[in-house]
Amino acid sequence: MTTTLYELLADGDRLISPYCWRTRFALPHKGLDATLIPIKFTEKEKIAFSGQDKVPVITDGEKVVFDSWTIACHLEDAYPDRPTLFGGDVGRALARFINSWGDKVQNPMMGSLIIFDVFQGLCPEDKAYFQKTREQRFGKALAEVQKGREERVAGFRSALEPVRSLVAEQPFISGKKPAYADYIVMGGFMWARNTSSLKLLEPNDPVFAWRDRMLDAFDGMAAGSNGLTV
Amino acid sequence: MTTTLYELLADGDRLISPYCWRTRFALPHKGLDATLIPIKFTEKEKIAFSGQDKVPVITDGEKVVFDSWTIACHLEDAYPDRPTLFGGDVGRALARFINSWGDKVQNPMMGSLIIFDVFQGLCPEDKAYFQKTREQRFGKALAEVQKGREERVAGFRSALEPVRSLVAEQPFISGKKPAYADYIVMGGFMWARNTSSLKLLEPNDPVFAWRDRMLDAFDGMAAGSNGLTV
Repeated sequence: MTTTLYELLADGDRLISPYCWRTRFALPHKGLDATLIPIKFTEKEKIAFSGQDKVPVITDGEKVVFDSWTIACHLEDAYPDRPTLFGGDVGRALARFINSWGDKVQNPMMGSLIIFDVFQGLCPEDKAYFQKTREQRFGKALAEVQKGREERVAGFRSALEPVRSLVAEQPFISGKKPAYADYIVMGGFMWARNTSSLKLLEPNDPVFAWRDRMLDAFDGMAAGSNGLTV
Repeated sequence: MTTTLYELLADGDRLISPYCWRTRFALPHKGLDATLIPIKFTEKEKIAFSGQDKVPVITDGEKVVFDSWTIACHLEDAYPDRPTLFGGDVGRALARFINSWGDKVQNPMMGSLIIFDVFQGLCPEDKAYFQKTREQRFGKALAEVQKGREERVAGFRSALEPVRSLVAEQPFISGKKPAYADYIVMGGFMWARNTSSLKLLEPNDPVFAWRDRMLDAFDGMAAGSNGLTV
């Protein structure tokens, strides 16, 4: 059976969607060797078959699944005999808490630090669309959103405390081995890594060491991706 | 085997520690019928046998355990055949994320909204100690900390989004049944309920309905406790 992942591409073949990265990690966790199809913001006709216009989208045999959380649940349920992404029903519910924390806290805070960098690194044909939709969302110019980030990065680091308290005492958010909760949080860091040279973490931060472990996971899959910084 | 819980008491027999409430819920979850020993801030000699001065403290047979998270882990490991608090190793790791979110986000935000109410409702002999230690922590008078809370409560509600997104779609944070992650978050709400009349939640908020379900859990254990508001 063939599995395919449609994911978002910036200039320089950089994979930049924090949500696509969640799926990117979940696939090898389940032992799936997916065909990767990068698309640009302006190539949404390539995923029109999914009935909506957001990546990630996967096809898994005959099945089409979109939305990173729905994809994770599909993979867990379709491949119950392979390594678990959630470690059971309670683990799935709690991973969803972290998913929501990633969507509502981590990624918006990151966005306010790197969004102009993201814009600058897009493929030229994607820039107008991105600028228009994101400036509507933020209510101001993207360069303005990012302003003062050197002072604001401390607030972002502080908001990572729930992650920090875990990875200071165990190798991964999910315990001894990485699982879906790790992929959620790492997705955000891959977005930043592959778009911005801002130093989000201090080297002595336990989250920094965790991020390194995640970069090395699956034979250095993330470390080997095109990016601007580690 | 006898189990005992030492927990914090305010004036009017109100149990007010968010951390003691975590344990309060965990005990019946594990089917343990604990003897409850309320203590005041100025009665710390009663828990000196634990080698430290913070509640909750439990004695479980010969064993003395303190710190709500350590107690939860003890109960899970000592009673593996009873209903699980975490649903496995990954669930335990992710519950710890929520534990840290409760400690670093939920409870400090709540504290900034209700701390003067907490102070006002303490047993008279506890007030001087509480005022001194908390004003040191906040760096200002407790009445000042609470100021402007009618405007700031919206920020607290917004920070609950990771909880909201779960309980909008399933009855409890942990899934179909409550488990330790629910007790963590509910501990904070019991602190507020039993000390303050501030309306923390809008009635149409899914978190409001979840809180009602938690008040009803274990035959209305929390609903039956002395408090100021629901």
